[in-house]
Amino acid sequence: MTNLIPTTEPLHIFNSLSRKKEVFLPIHPNHVGMYVCGPTVYGDAHLGHARPAITFDLVFRYFRHLGYKVRYVRNITDVGHLENDADEGEDKIARKARLEQLEPMEVVQYYTVRYHKNMDQLNVLRPSIEPHASGHIIEQIEMIKKILAAGYAYESDGSVYFDVEKYNQTHPYGILSGRKIDELISNTRELSGQNEKRNSFDFAIWKKADPTHIMRWPSPWGDGFPGWHMECSAMGCKYLGEQFDIHGGGMDLLFPHHESEIAQSTVANGKPPVRYWMHNNMITLNGQKMGKSLGNAMSLDDIFTGNHPLLAQAYSPMTIRFFILQAHYRSTLDFSNEALQAAEKGLKKLLFADETVKKLKPATGAASQNIEAIAKACYDAMNDDFSSPMAIASLFEAVKLINAANDGHLKLNPNDLELLKQLMDVFLFDILGLRAEDAGTDHHLVEGLMETIIGLRQEARARKDFATSDLIRDGLAKLNIVLKDGKEGTSWEMK
Amino acid sequence: MTNLIPTTEPLHIFNSLSRKKEVFLPIHPNHVGMYVCGPTVYGDAHLGHARPAITFDLVFRYFRHLGYKVRYVRNITDVGHLENDADEGEDKIARKARLEQLEPMEVVQYYTVRYHKNMDQLNVLRPSIEPHASGHIIEQIEMIKKILAAGYAYESDGSVYFDVEKYNQTHPYGILSGRKIDELISNTRELSGQNEKRNSFDFAIWKKADPTHIMRWPSPWGDGFPGWHMECSAMGCKYLGEQFDIHGGGMDLLFPHHESEIAQSTVANGKPPVRYWMHNNMITLNGQKMGKSLGNAMSLDDIFTGNHPLLAQAYSPMTIRFFILQAHYRSTLDFSNEALQAAEKGLKKLLFADETVKKLKPATGAASQNIEAIAKACYDAMNDDFSSPMAIASLFEAVKLINAANDGHLKLNPNDLELLKQLMDVFLFDILGLRAEDAGTDHHLVEGLMETIIGLRQEARARKDFATSDLIRDGLAKLNIVLKDGKEGTSWEMK
Repeated sequence: MTNLIPTTEPLHIFNSLSRKKEVFLPIHPNHVGMYVCGPTVYGDAHLGHARPAITFDLVFRYFRHLGYKVRYVRNITDVGHLENDADEGEDKIARKARLEQLEPMEVVQYYTVRYHKNMDQLNVLRPSIEPHASGHIIEQIEMIKKILAAGYAYESDGSVYFDVEKYNQTHPYGILSGRKIDELISNTRELSGQNEKRNSFDFAIWKKADPTHIMRWPSPWGDGFPGWHMECSAMGCKYLGEQFDIHGGGMDLLFPHHESEIAQSTVANGKPPVRYWMHNNMITLNGQKMGKSLGNAMSLDDIFTGNHPLLAQAYSPMTIRFFILQAHYRSTLDFSNEALQAAEKGLKKLLFADETVKKLKPATGAASQNIEAIAKACYDAMNDDFSSPMAIASLFEAVKLINAANDGHLKLNPNDLELLKQLMDVFLFDILGLRAEDAGTDHHLVEGLMETIIGLRQEARARKDFATSDLIRDGLAKLNIVLKDGKEGTSWEMK
Repeated sequence: MTNLIPTTEPLHIFNSLSRKKEVFLPIHPNHVGMYVCGPTVYGDAHLGHARPAITFDLVFRYFRHLGYKVRYVRNITDVGHLENDADEGEDKIARKARLEQLEPMEVVQYYTVRYHKNMDQLNVLRPSIEPHASGHIIEQIEMIKKILAAGYAYESDGSVYFDVEKYNQTHPYGILSGRKIDELISNTRELSGQNEKRNSFDFAIWKKADPTHIMRWPSPWGDGFPGWHMECSAMGCKYLGEQFDIHGGGMDLLFPHHESEIAQSTVANGKPPVRYWMHNNMITLNGQKMGKSLGNAMSLDDIFTGNHPLLAQAYSPMTIRFFILQAHYRSTLDFSNEALQAAEKGLKKLLFADETVKKLKPATGAASQNIEAIAKACYDAMNDDFSSPMAIASLFEAVKLINAANDGHLKLNPNDLELLKQLMDVFLFDILGLRAEDAGTDHHLVEGLMETIIGLRQEARARKDFATSDLIRDGLAKLNIVLKDGKEGTSWEMK
């Protein structure tokens, strides 16, 4: 892929680390290394999974459009993520496995397959590499050894903890989240096992497995499993190097997960791991935080089928995708039936205009409508921290021109028409990642059309209009359809 | 799921180990543990991948139908499988990565995603667990330690080899393949590095990585990677236990892969790993062995699109599935256009009969047609080493009755009709895993039907038959279709 027009604005990214927009400069020219935190696979994907997936799919697609070679790593967390994102409590996967009487990896497989199905429905491209945390225990152990060797961790009763206080003496702990160590002390609840730690804000990088824990591996510190934050540090480093361009995730992961990643990688490799940290904002529901405990959480399958008391109807995967792209990824986004219905309508309008523009005939010599300006606005929007809502607004400018031309109120010269076609195709499908959704309704349509045709044939026969009924027979024969007249009416079948 | 009729024949499986059919007795009542060798993901899936996947999908589905709780493990080989299935030469994944200038795990991700897509098209269910070899290095190292400790392996220049001669002194090496050690000596080519081995027929269980090798992990013997046969022994044991019920794979894996697995697991765990070994036979093409070097290999995508000089047409995934199921899994199967076209026709006939039987009306008091006998024949076939061709032959007996009833030559009482419906549904969809394939053609059909309807309307208008043209307008309106008359004819769109 390549730009439709020469662009002038360089790509800016809002860096959570500096809290401002910065020009994007890749570490290796023409290459982008990007790591995004993927799901913990112990339940069905919900809206909260759709937003980061679609946000960073947009980023992935746009970099590819600009001609970058992108290595996009998105992990699967299948071990070490404990309840409440804490150092104590049960592993989320192990808990589900216990409840369902399954091997933990059966739980992982089940929900990973369903996650992929949902992501495919949302037209989210598969990342370049999708590593499993449980598949990189050695890499995590090796990194823990490095952290211990550097003096920033300590072993305690078979577990290994990161020494935050020591780190904070020489490194800016809180650089990403803005948290201060003294605030953390008062915020940390006392939990069982806390006494293993020197300070309550230290975090586990290796956890001892008690005798009944299934997910366990041998290590220099005895049988155990890695702390949740280790996997991303270890896998990011393995596949993208000690320093890479972009690390993304939801804002809820900023602390402690990403703050811990920075600390771990910095002491293990002697440098900060990531140049640009990107965080998408959250989705609320009718203005409220979404959550299982609040009773307003809904899975993507619920939304696609309309099977939830808060839903007025089903919303298609593309409606959800468009709804998410209509907001800037750093804004909060409120999920409501009204907003979804508006998104459905807007999407239909855009896709319909794309169909229309393909059928328009150019008018040689017509005055230019300055389509370049619309295209430039689309690129400028994307270059301004991936502003999909601004890009979409500019595409609606294009839609106005297309509809005016279709209604005969406007003539488009060949250059304008060609650029319009490309602009719609490239932005709608390649960059925004939308697609037409009609396959599901075709079957219903075929049934309906056949009913209409059989009705017409009945009418024709009733008035002895055999020319028409022959016309019908011949038309259907071309489509390999045979009509069968029986006692209970006419049926049809494919030859 | 549960049986449609009480069955009398117990399930028999042809055990490659005993070379005869044996009654299946699970290790744990009502549970089946099954391990099947999955793909080495360095290229697109071809017919040779479809056969084992469909064969063991049939086995998986049938056990589930019988009410067993099945844990089905099928691995992804992403490290350690060297060219020519030998101990020397380049790793297949690493070679592809080098040629494509990618990280090896990018190659793995790319082809794994494509493999899954093809398997979904073939309606092959995902296994319960799908472990990656590269994700189980620790488990393989631990097992190698056990083999060394038992005295059946030796370290040599950073690699570890299995001592086949020593094993053969006390264990029946060749028990599965029937090969004899003295035959192996003369068949083994002298390759570089062979001098590290005590005997040419010894095989690597850990390979030293040379300095440029990317896929490497630390081990007690230095940096390296596991030998190809290790992964299945280690992952089978991890997820199914030291002894499990069924191990499957293609006949080409019988030696050295499966023979080596038996030797490794037997000395590591002190018992043979598997009760029933099952092997599917190969697919030939027009009577010839298929192979990339022979120029007659074709990917599944080639077959589904018809994009290969040896193909007379495209064949749908369900045609391929039915074609494979029409032969017993232990028979060779010859791929030819004639055979495929026959399968396509046969499948259509079965699916059409399934549609028909749903529309039939029962005739109370009609004499019994003994549908139980057909159902019993279907079960007997499946219980006779999963004989899908015999089951399909019995289903065609059912088709005869259905068609006769549909043509009015036969009456079916309510019991017969109900059992027929269930028999068709359960065997076609649940057990054989077929499905109706029409979604892809519907779009084309809609276009064709609309063309026919627009033609009819034109005719009606020409003869001023406004009643008919109104009928058409109303029929289409019900389907949300609007006609638009323009200078260049009539077009249509969805409201």
